[in-house]
This record gives sequence, structure tokens and C-alpha cells, in this order.
Amino acid sequence: MSTPAEARAAFRGGAVVPTSGLALGHTQANLISLPRDYAYDMLLFAQRNPKPCPVLEVTEPGSWESALAAGADLRTDLPAYRVWEHGKLVDSPGEVTHEWRDDLVTFLIGCSFSFETLLLDARVPLRHVEQGVNVPMYLTNRECGRAGRMHGPLVVSMRPVPADAVARASAITALMPAVHGAPVHVGAPEALGITDLDKPDFGDAVRFEDGDVPVFWACGVTSQAAVMRAAPPFAITHEPGHMFITDARDIDYRVA
Amino acid sequence: MSTPAEARAAFRGGAVVPTSGLALGHTQANLISLPRDYAYDMLLFAQRNPKPCPVLEVTEPGSWESALAAGADLRTDLPAYRVWEHGKLVDSPGEVTHEWRDDLVTFLIGCSFSFETLLLDARVPLRHVEQGVNVPMYLTNRECGRAGRMHGPLVVSMRPVPADAVARASAITALMPAVHGAPVHVGAPEALGITDLDKPDFGDAVRFEDGDVPVFWACGVTSQAAVMRAAPPFAITHEPGHMFITDARDIDYRVA
Repeated sequence: MSTPAEARAAFRGGAVVPTSGLALGHTQANLISLPRDYAYDMLLFAQRNPKPCPVLEVTEPGSWESALAAGADLRTDLPAYRVWEHGKLVDSPGEVTHEWRDDLVTFLIGCSFSFETLLLDARVPLRHVEQGVNVPMYLTNRECGRAGRMHGPLVVSMRPVPADAVARASAITALMPAVHGAPVHVGAPEALGITDLDKPDFGDAVRFEDGDVPVFWACGVTSQAAVMRAAPPFAITHEPGHMFITDARDIDYRVA
Repeated sequence: MSTPAEARAAFRGGAVVPTSGLALGHTQANLISLPRDYAYDMLLFAQRNPKPCPVLEVTEPGSWESALAAGADLRTDLPAYRVWEHGKLVDSPGEVTHEWRDDLVTFLIGCSFSFETLLLDARVPLRHVEQGVNVPMYLTNRECGRAGRMHGPLVVSMRPVPADAVARASAITALMPAVHGAPVHVGAPEALGITDLDKPDFGDAVRFEDGDVPVFWACGVTSQAAVMRAAPPFAITHEPGHMFITDARDIDYRVA
């Protein structure tokens, strides 16, 4: 799974793994598909919350093609999906061909996995990759800006970063606002309303090394939390940490 | 007019001047107000064309208030407006209180005036400010990404920059993607389809000093060009170069 096309083919064939560390250097994306009637509210929610919800692409209604990945099928080429009805999770299938609808507008939203290659290049270790687990994600006590019917809490991803690498990790990711940009919070998880780092709301717990500090980035799963809260009649999302791997290169999203 | 509130009050009182160089350090914005029926197409057009159309704020339908400017009235607090019907300019009034409609959604779009303070701080001269004219803007031969009914050419602003300051100007503006970011083009205006720099499509011609190179940034007037092309039944925009001056600080839009 060293190229995006190989990874997508593997997922289409049934493989189910978190995508962090796969097809390094290529941009990964959150997926959220909503009925056309909700598309304006979702796009406005993203505009009002650009740190968690930087939009990389919006499809035409019903389309399962992406301009960011030649030949890809958005219904089958992610490792795992979630199907939602009225804000409740009703299924967690490996593909959503049968669930697809003609009125679904799909939003691809930037993912922090897209800056992990640059972090590694700068000798910032990635504990979740070292330990072979999914990145931990947490619901916070920070409310996002509301847009029509879409509202919900900020979700963050967390990476333990050695104290002497926090500034470097911040500076590098700041240059990539389309994939969440700089951390929103460093240290002090309790100030975000996170009481136990070992119990993430999405993904897996990750082990800290001595001297690591928890660093929090805004997370695209924020859009999924808004689906849980806003409860549209129907929605499809990716399984957190199991992203759409595009052909775009991370470097394309660096502003400098 | 050294503070945003003073400038807005002066415009409300009838003053009409280009806003480059006013209330330095504060963020300026393009304005485009469209019927609610066009709001999704406009927001999607902005998403698909983030260099010319970085969205700073979207109002609720009918509202003339801005979260970016306490006490401001979007109908009166810009120096000059344009009123459009079916893509044709029908009026150029100083305020639009009577033209306002309950279904108008207003988009405030980033403006390159917002990085001019940082350019001056870095000793990049601004010829249009020195010469007391509006910045020149040009229609180009580059087509924007289409979104529903909204489509049109890329519009650029142009600043003559001393050859030894071009790299510095590029690096500084790259850090401010919300106000157009790095130049889209340096030198070679003919490659953009611009045949005569002395005849801008919007704003004023500006005089080059010896050794100056034309540097082109994506421009929010692109949204106005899309109105001319897409011809919605009704629209209100600002007069190019005559922007909405917000209370936000330019520095707030720097990513690093």
C-alpha cells in the first residue's frame, strides 16, 4: 500500500486498517456525504470552522468520483464507513454502494495524517505509528460556530510530542492550514474538557514516552460530531482514522 | 480615517475614496450580496477557487451586520457600491439601504490590501499608495473552477515591485492565504492575457519605477466577474478598491 492507488485497491478488496502511515506523502481526507438539502449548511459550517473542517473538495450530487484521485470510487475505496440515520449510527460497513443515493453531496475534508510525513522528516516521532495503533481523537468542551442546522463540539486528534520538538511540530504544521494547520492546544488536556487521555472518543489510546507532551490538532471528525448532533435524516461518513487516500501530495497544501 | 470605525463612519457620511492605505493593520474585505437561492453556488465557487475567493464571513439571509466589525452596517459603511441585475451594472450608489432585500446573503471575501501593511513593514514599496491611486486590477485568460451557475475568469490585482523585493513580497504574502496568499504570477503579463498594463479593467493605472516587475495576486473582484458572467437576477457588490474595513487585524490572518 505504498501508493494511493494500491491502497485504494486494497480497501476496495476488503482490507480494513487505519490509514496513518500509508502512501506517505499523499494527502488523506475525511469523508462526509449528506443529502443535497444539507449541503449549504455543511459548507457554511466548514467555512465557520476552518481549523477542524478545511474543505478539499465538494462533489456534485450523487457523484462518487473525486477530482483528487483518478479512477477512485468514493463508495468503496475507503477502508471502513459509517452509516447514520437521524444522528444514530446504524451500520459500519466496508463499502456503501447499496446505501448510496442520488442526492448525496460528498465533502472531502483535510486530515492531519497529511502532515505526518513532514513531521517525520523533521524528526518529530509519531507514537501512534510506532505503536501500530489508530491516532486518538477526543470530543472537547469547545463549541464550533453554528451554521443553520449543523452544530457540534470541536474534535481534536492528539499526538504525544517530545517537549523539545513541540515548537518544531507547531511551526511545520502551521504552514498547512488546509490539513488543520497549527495545533489548537498544547498540554493541559483538562482545559479542553478531556479528563482521561487513555479513553479517547475515537481511535485508540497511545502510550507516552518520558518527556512527551500531548499536542492537540483540530480534527475533521468534527464534521461527524456535527452529524451526531444535527441528526440529518441520512449521512455516510468514514470510520475515524480510516481515511480516503488521494493522489494529491501533502506538499501541494503547504502555503510556504 | 486611522481606525476602522472612523473610516466606516466617514463612508456612512458620504466619503468616497479607495481604501488602500486606510486604517492600516486592519483587514479589508470584498462584499458580494446574492439572493439566498445563489448562496450555495457562491460558497462552492469560493471553495473551488480559494486563492481569489477566500471567505472571511457569510451572513444570515437579510442581515446587514458583520461579526468582524462591531456596530457596522454593511448597507452604508463601504465607500461605494454596485447594483447588478441579470449581470448588468444598473447603479453605482454610495449606500444600498433601499436596494437591500430580506433574502440577500452577504459574502465578505479577503482583500490583498490586508497584507499591504506587512509589505510596507518589510520595505516593499506600494506604488499605488505612493501615487495616490486605486490598485489596478485585470481580467485574465484563466478560467475559475465552475460551481453550479457561478463561473468566470480569474481577476488579479497588480503591484509593481522592485526586482530585489519580489522574493520577499512573495514569502510574506504566502503566510496569509485568507487574504489571497502568495502571488499567482510574477512578470510576463501577456501569459495571463493582459496586453496593456496601462489599461486595467478595474481601478487605476499605476506608474512603474525603474527596475520594477509586475507582481500579480489573485483578487476578490473575481467574485464580481462571476456575477457579470453568471448573471443572477440581483446582486450587490462593492466598487472595486472601495472595500469594507473590518475591526479584525491583518495579523489574525497570518498562519505563521
